[in-house]
Amino acid sequence: MNNEIPYKIYLSEQEIPKQWYNLRADMKNKPAPLINEDGSICSKEELSKVFCDDLVEQELNDTDAFIDIPDGIRDFYKMYRPAPLIRAYCLEKKLQTPAHIYYKFEGNNTSGSHKLNSAIAQAYYAKKQGLKGVTTETGAGQWGTALSMACSYYDLACKVYMVKVSYEQKPYRREVMRTYGASVTPSPSETTKTGREILKKFPGTNGSLGCAVSEAVEVASELDGYRYVLGSVLNQVALHQSVIGLETQTALKKYGIKIDTIIGCAGGGSNLAGLIAPFAGEILRGENNYDIIAVEPSSCPSFTRGTYAYDYCDTGRITPLAKMYTLGSDFIPAPGHSGGLRFHGMNPMLSQLYHDKIIRAVSVNQTDVFKSAVEFARVEGILPAPESSHAIDIAIKEALKCKETGEAKNILFGLTGTGYFDMAAYQNYNDGTLKDFPLEDKEINKSVDKLPIIEA
Amino acid sequence: MNNEIPYKIYLSEQEIPKQWYNLRADMKNKPAPLINEDGSICSKEELSKVFCDDLVEQELNDTDAFIDIPDGIRDFYKMYRPAPLIRAYCLEKKLQTPAHIYYKFEGNNTSGSHKLNSAIAQAYYAKKQGLKGVTTETGAGQWGTALSMACSYYDLACKVYMVKVSYEQKPYRREVMRTYGASVTPSPSETTKTGREILKKFPGTNGSLGCAVSEAVEVASELDGYRYVLGSVLNQVALHQSVIGLETQTALKKYGIKIDTIIGCAGGGSNLAGLIAPFAGEILRGENNYDIIAVEPSSCPSFTRGTYAYDYCDTGRITPLAKMYTLGSDFIPAPGHSGGLRFHGMNPMLSQLYHDKIIRAVSVNQTDVFKSAVEFARVEGILPAPESSHAIDIAIKEALKCKETGEAKNILFGLTGTGYFDMAAYQNYNDGTLKDFPLEDKEINKSVDKLPIIEA
Repeated sequence: MNNEIPYKIYLSEQEIPKQWYNLRADMKNKPAPLINEDGSICSKEELSKVFCDDLVEQELNDTDAFIDIPDGIRDFYKMYRPAPLIRAYCLEKKLQTPAHIYYKFEGNNTSGSHKLNSAIAQAYYAKKQGLKGVTTETGAGQWGTALSMACSYYDLACKVYMVKVSYEQKPYRREVMRTYGASVTPSPSETTKTGREILKKFPGTNGSLGCAVSEAVEVASELDGYRYVLGSVLNQVALHQSVIGLETQTALKKYGIKIDTIIGCAGGGSNLAGLIAPFAGEILRGENNYDIIAVEPSSCPSFTRGTYAYDYCDTGRITPLAKMYTLGSDFIPAPGHSGGLRFHGMNPMLSQLYHDKIIRAVSVNQTDVFKSAVEFARVEGILPAPESSHAIDIAIKEALKCKETGEAKNILFGLTGTGYFDMAAYQNYNDGTLKDFPLEDKEINKSVDKLPIIEA
Repeated sequence: MNNEIPYKIYLSEQEIPKQWYNLRADMKNKPAPLINEDGSICSKEELSKVFCDDLVEQELNDTDAFIDIPDGIRDFYKMYRPAPLIRAYCLEKKLQTPAHIYYKFEGNNTSGSHKLNSAIAQAYYAKKQGLKGVTTETGAGQWGTALSMACSYYDLACKVYMVKVSYEQKPYRREVMRTYGASVTPSPSETTKTGREILKKFPGTNGSLGCAVSEAVEVASELDGYRYVLGSVLNQVALHQSVIGLETQTALKKYGIKIDTIIGCAGGGSNLAGLIAPFAGEILRGENNYDIIAVEPSSCPSFTRGTYAYDYCDTGRITPLAKMYTLGSDFIPAPGHSGGLRFHGMNPMLSQLYHDKIIRAVSVNQTDVFKSAVEFARVEGILPAPESSHAIDIAIKEALKCKETGEAKNILFGLTGTGYFDMAAYQNYNDGTLKDFPLEDKEINKSVDKLPIIEA
C-alpha cells in the first residue's frame, strides 16, 4: 500500500502491539549483567528484594525476542495509544528541504511523555504480586507523574521522592502527582536514614537524583509490601518502551516508507531504546541498515565523553552496578533545563550497541536545542519538551544537510513529550538569558578517576 | 456497521469536515441581530471596522446551512484533528452504571482546548485580507494561546491583552504565548486610552475581561492593518466550532450509536454551540430528539439566573449590544477557578435555543466540579480543565441516575481541554481550601437593574 501520506498516521486499537520486543535476544554481544559491589552477578533473589518478581524476570531475560503484553496493560494502553506517527509537512516546508521528516509523538497523555508506557507495566506487575505500593524518585517530574497515574489506575500507593530543587521550582508537577493520589516528599528528607545523613552532612542542600534514588530504595526495602520502581536505565524499561518502535514500524510499513535516519534524545535511554528497538533488530539480523543517532546534552554527554565501565546507578552507591557509558556516579551535571537527560549513565543495552557501533551519538548545546524547539513549535503546533527538542535539533540539521545535497532522505525522530511544565526554561530562552554548560575536560577526568572500574 | 466500540474512535483525515454547519439556517426563531447603542441594527460596514470582512459575512449569515472550510484552514486542522471520541469504559466501570459514556476530547493540542478551531479560522481570514495583525483579550489564557499559535502559523502579528491578575498568576500561560511570538500586555495598561483612564480611576486594579476587551478593540481600531478577534460569544465562533459536533456525529454514525443526552460546559458558549450544532439541527428539523444540557458555574449562571435582553459584550460598553441571557455587563463574577466560564453573557444563538426550550441548563458548585474532575482523571487518565469538568460533573450525575433507574442511556459530553495550567486550582482542591461562590440574589438584582434593556 502506498497511499498519500496523511499528516498523522493513527493505527487502530487492534494494531497496538500484543508483545513487547526484547532487542537483547537478537544481540550477539549481550549487555553485561548487573553486579554487586564484590563483582558477583546479581541473582534473581537479590534483585527480587528491591524489584517486583515479574520485572526481575524481564530484567534478566536476554533470550526471548517477544514477551506478551498482559491484557490489563493493553487496556490501559488503549486509553492513550496508539500514539500518532506524524509527517512534519509544515517543518519540511519551512526548511525547504527535500527530506521527509516523521516523528513519533508520545506526549498525548497527561504525564506528557513516553514514561507512561513503562509506568503502567510496572504498576501492573506490582499489583499482580499483591503489593501495597511502590516507591520511586523523580527529577523533572515526568516519571513521577506517569507512575502516579498508573498507580491511581490500579489503586496502589505511590511514594515519590522528588529532588528538592524540582519540588520547589515545579510546584505544579508536584500537584499533578498529588491529584493522582501520590505522596510527594522533597528529597533529601527526614523520612529516611539516608536522607537524615545527607541533611546532616550538607544542611540546606537542594538534593540530587542520586540521593532521591537512595531514599526511595531504602523505603521500599523497609516497608512491608513495597518495591522500588525506576523509569529509565534498566533493560526492563527499554523492553516496555519497545511499543514506541513497534507502532512506528507498523505505521511505516502501512505506507511503504523506508526510513534512512532515526534520531532520539538520550538521558537514561528509555525513549531511545524503545524507539530504535525493532530497527536495531533489523540491523543486527542483517536485514536492513539505518543511521541511528542518539542526541545528548553537552552538559551531560555520557555516550560521547563517558567511559564504558561498571558503575553504580546512584550517587549513594546502594544500587547494583551496571556496565554502561558513564560520567561517574558522583557526577553532578550543570543546571541545564532538560531534567530528563541529567543522568550520569546510560542503559546497558544501548551502551553495548554504541560500543559495537550499531548506533552513533552526538551532543548539543541547550541554546541550539531551544532555538530548534521554538522553530518546530511555531510551524508544527506542538510545544516540545526540552528533552525531546534535542532530537528535533539534530533532525533539523540532518534535513538541512539534505537541502545541501539534494537527497530526499526519510528522517524519523522521537518526540518524547510536551513542554507545558517547562515554561520557566522557555522564559529564559525568550528573555535571552539561557546559557550553555558544555562539560569541561577537567570535570570528566575528575569523574572518571573516581569510577570503581570493576571488570566482571 | 456496529463493531465493538474501541476506547478511542479516530476518524481519518478525509473525514475532517469540509464544511462548517451553520445551525442558524435551521432555526425558525433566528437569534436577534447585533445592535448599536441607539437601537439600530449593526451594518456590515460598521462591523467591518472592527472585524475581518469574511468574518463579518459569517457573523451575519443566518441562511446558509453549510459554509466551506478553506483548504488553508483544513490543512492546519490536520495537524491536531480529527479529535478522538472516547468511550469512558473505565469511568463507567468505576461508577457501575449501565449507561454508556462518551466524550469528545478537544485538548490534544498545545493551546490545550477547542479554542484553536476558531483561532485558526480567524487568523486565516485576517491573512487573506492582507492584514498585518490582530488584537484580542484573554482571561485564563486558552484563547490567547490558541490565537498565538494560529498567528504564528500565518506569520501575523498578535497583540494579546491579558487580564492583569492572570498575567501575574499564570506566567507560564503568558510564556507559551510569547514562545509563539505574540506580544502580551497586562490589562489595564498604559498603552491605550481606555487603559490609562481605568488606571487613573482605579489605581492598582487587577483588571477584568471587560477592560481587556476594550483595550484590544481600541488598539485594533487605531492601528493600520489590524482587526479585533474574539474567542467566544459571537455566532461566527459558534460556526467554526461546529467541527466538534460534526466529527462527533460522523463517529457515532460509524458505530451506530444513538445518543440520548448531550452535555457541555457553557461560558460564552463556543464549545457548547459547536458540540451540539448538528444534534440541535436534527431537533429543529424534527428528525430526532436529544436532552441537551448546558452546565454553568453557580458563580456565573447566565442561563439559569440571567435575563434575556440586549446587553453590551464588554464592561466598557464600547462593543455592539447582543440579545442574550446576561447577568449584566458590569457583573464581576466571584474569583472561581474556571476563567473560561466567567463571562456575564451567552452566545445569542444558544440564548435563543434556550429561550425556545431546545436546550436546558443547570448550574454547579466548583467544589463538586473538582471532585468529579479528580474522580475522572484517576480512572480515565486525562487531567481535565476546570471548565470542562463542569460537563464531567453532570455526566457523572446523569450516569448515576441511570444506575438507579437501570436505563442504559448513551451519554455524550464535551471535554473541552486539559488542566495543565490550572494546577494552582487543583492545589486548592487537594489542600481542601477550595470554596464555592454561588451567586447571591442581591447581586443578580443589582446587575439586572443596570441593564440597558433595549428591545429591538
